[in-house]
Amino acid sequence: MHTLWAERFAQRTQRMKSSAVRELLKLTELPEVISFAGGLPAPETFPVEHFTESFGKVMADFGAKALQYSTTEGYRPLRELIAERATRYGIRVEADNILITSGSQQALDLIGKVFINPGDHILVESPTYLGALQAWNAYQAEYVAAATDHDGYIVESVEQKLRTGPKFIYALPNFQNPSGVTMSLERRHRLIEIADHYGAPILEDDPYGQLRYEGEHVPSLVTLDSQFRSTNGAQYSGNVIYLSTFSKTLSPGIRLGWIVAPVEVIRKLVQAKQGTDLHTSTVNQMVAYEASRGGFLDQHVKMIRAVYRERRDTMLAALAQHFPKGISWTRPQGGLFLWLTFPEWMDAGKVLKAAVEQKVAFVPGTSFFADGTGHNTARLNFSNATPERIEEGVKRLARCLETLIESHQPKDAH
Amino acid sequence: MHTLWAERFAQRTQRMKSSAVRELLKLTELPEVISFAGGLPAPETFPVEHFTESFGKVMADFGAKALQYSTTEGYRPLRELIAERATRYGIRVEADNILITSGSQQALDLIGKVFINPGDHILVESPTYLGALQAWNAYQAEYVAAATDHDGYIVESVEQKLRTGPKFIYALPNFQNPSGVTMSLERRHRLIEIADHYGAPILEDDPYGQLRYEGEHVPSLVTLDSQFRSTNGAQYSGNVIYLSTFSKTLSPGIRLGWIVAPVEVIRKLVQAKQGTDLHTSTVNQMVAYEASRGGFLDQHVKMIRAVYRERRDTMLAALAQHFPKGISWTRPQGGLFLWLTFPEWMDAGKVLKAAVEQKVAFVPGTSFFADGTGHNTARLNFSNATPERIEEGVKRLARCLETLIESHQPKDAH
Repeated sequence: MHTLWAERFAQRTQRMKSSAVRELLKLTELPEVISFAGGLPAPETFPVEHFTESFGKVMADFGAKALQYSTTEGYRPLRELIAERATRYGIRVEADNILITSGSQQALDLIGKVFINPGDHILVESPTYLGALQAWNAYQAEYVAAATDHDGYIVESVEQKLRTGPKFIYALPNFQNPSGVTMSLERRHRLIEIADHYGAPILEDDPYGQLRYEGEHVPSLVTLDSQFRSTNGAQYSGNVIYLSTFSKTLSPGIRLGWIVAPVEVIRKLVQAKQGTDLHTSTVNQMVAYEASRGGFLDQHVKMIRAVYRERRDTMLAALAQHFPKGISWTRPQGGLFLWLTFPEWMDAGKVLKAAVEQKVAFVPGTSFFADGTGHNTARLNFSNATPERIEEGVKRLARCLETLIESHQPKDAH
Repeated sequence: MHTLWAERFAQRTQRMKSSAVRELLKLTELPEVISFAGGLPAPETFPVEHFTESFGKVMADFGAKALQYSTTEGYRPLRELIAERATRYGIRVEADNILITSGSQQALDLIGKVFINPGDHILVESPTYLGALQAWNAYQAEYVAAATDHDGYIVESVEQKLRTGPKFIYALPNFQNPSGVTMSLERRHRLIEIADHYGAPILEDDPYGQLRYEGEHVPSLVTLDSQFRSTNGAQYSGNVIYLSTFSKTLSPGIRLGWIVAPVEVIRKLVQAKQGTDLHTSTVNQMVAYEASRGGFLDQHVKMIRAVYRERRDTMLAALAQHFPKGISWTRPQGGLFLWLTFPEWMDAGKVLKAAVEQKVAFVPGTSFFADGTGHNTARLNFSNATPERIEEGVKRLARCLETLIESHQPKDAH
């Protein structure tokens, strides 16, 4: 159907491509497909009963207030709870430093709206979170990608790229999406120093920080920066904006995330959010507060960690047992993902095509590279499928890879 | 506190001003202030019990599914329900024409993101909805304002402004926010014709359409345009995008609105929404569906209409009884607002200052004019306060106005 509207799309829509992840999710929604493609939490871990009780309590205590419009900044007790939880990681922030968002994805969108002029450079990891690229493409951002290895950002590469004058540095230091890599403490210290030297602010995205399955907690960039600048403890320095979410600890379906930022930045973000969706669901904020307080969240996260640790271990063991030689993978200490590197000649898109026929799916790595490289890489999710299905899915994937490797052997070898 | 972030705001933030409405709401939150300033529904009308039951049913029937990520387009049964309800207004749309948004405000934001290039002209009513200006300022829109009267858009003025080549025409034909005015059927027909002549698409914003307290329903622009173009009934024509919301019929706190648009536009809007907030709260969509189906919504809206009709009548009677001469107002057939015009010499901002001292509040009209005119106008909300408080609030406001008028008398008249 031809309509007047369709002739009038804005320039920025040319860069809006449908997320590869989401298009794939559609392909792989059939129950017989074992999907390592999405980034979905395990539904078995959702606190359905506790959530229902919390909802009942909110409606009984607040009634109509929970269904009414509320402030753009967010529900004050929830902001206070978030601020209080931040202090346990060695940083002092106030509720006024916190804006509640409609999921962490909205935090990325609002940051784009408030900070990105068309053509601005944003320094990103290579690979980086696809959803951030999607959010910022709408503001016509350009990307400069710094190299990473098994310890995260390679600081020399960051320094070189900082000379292009990026608006900010985007970093996912914990169990990165997509690579599963965690930035080492030494690298974090050096990133803070180099960012300070060049006067570049940092955007720290930390959706998975609490989902660590082994090793010691590494202080976040926001904490390290505050310690770096502060002589009297660790008052929030304001040079790192920090994002997190309830999606991986409570429920993604309630769409609740938050931003920690300097008060003058919060003010602008609030103005942007007013025009964007007025405020985040009142009732969801109240229920999340009710569900989180009194120690429930900590207990619940412990359970999630146990479930995901087993799934990660199952996947790592299955990869070691079934995968053909020539393929390597990361060994994440937490989070939801690990990262495959196929032989150079192998195209992950072609692997996916073969895999879907065998009823197993994953995300080819290219989408996660701002420069379109990474043709022979792939992201595997280990949080959503049960251990049995993980084992079976890896076996299926291994068979595809073996077939592809066999057909790649030079013909004259026969 | 000086931070690196605060030095780096994007150009578009220069046009983001904090909403006058929201700043006022903060001032007038004290219980002793009678506020006609907000656009809040009456909390007494919220279906707290029914909502609680619906939530219980959703959690019992769907459990974890209600807390999981879901599709960007929205919950299919809810989209089908909305499509089905549209047919009763004489237009055939499919669920695929519908995108669920995080409130109607997000619909305005997504339209801006997908359609507005910096500097694009948008044709708006004078006055128009403040939230639309806020949403589109972020995309650096420019506005051309056409004149309105008691029948809505003056079509000759629209035609003149269409010659400036606006991207689209923005219209709120029913009980407009802020003026309370309803566009006449004849004007609607002529607007459709003139838009067709100039090839200008229309964005119809209809949050209050179901809240009519007297007179006959006037067909919406989307219906009239479809009839205008269709020889075989009224298949959706696609030249009018239509927005509405559950905020005024069920609850604003759940943040649920929708867009009716051509499928190729929905596709772009979905891509924009993916980057903006992934999707709207799963559980809220399921609960809204559960709460709306089976005839509840129609029964509930009847009750709301009865409550608001009484409040409107109370306000109109109080204005007629207490207000000094020289002030006029609109007589809305529905919606939440009416519109005051003070004498030319009177500044509504100064009236507000005096009013807040007397513990009564409203919104000065200037914010609703894209060109900053309207200094002697004001918006009054009649849905939120009880009839007793409406009566008392109008009395207080009348006293302020009398005092201002007295002090304006030439001194030599004494």
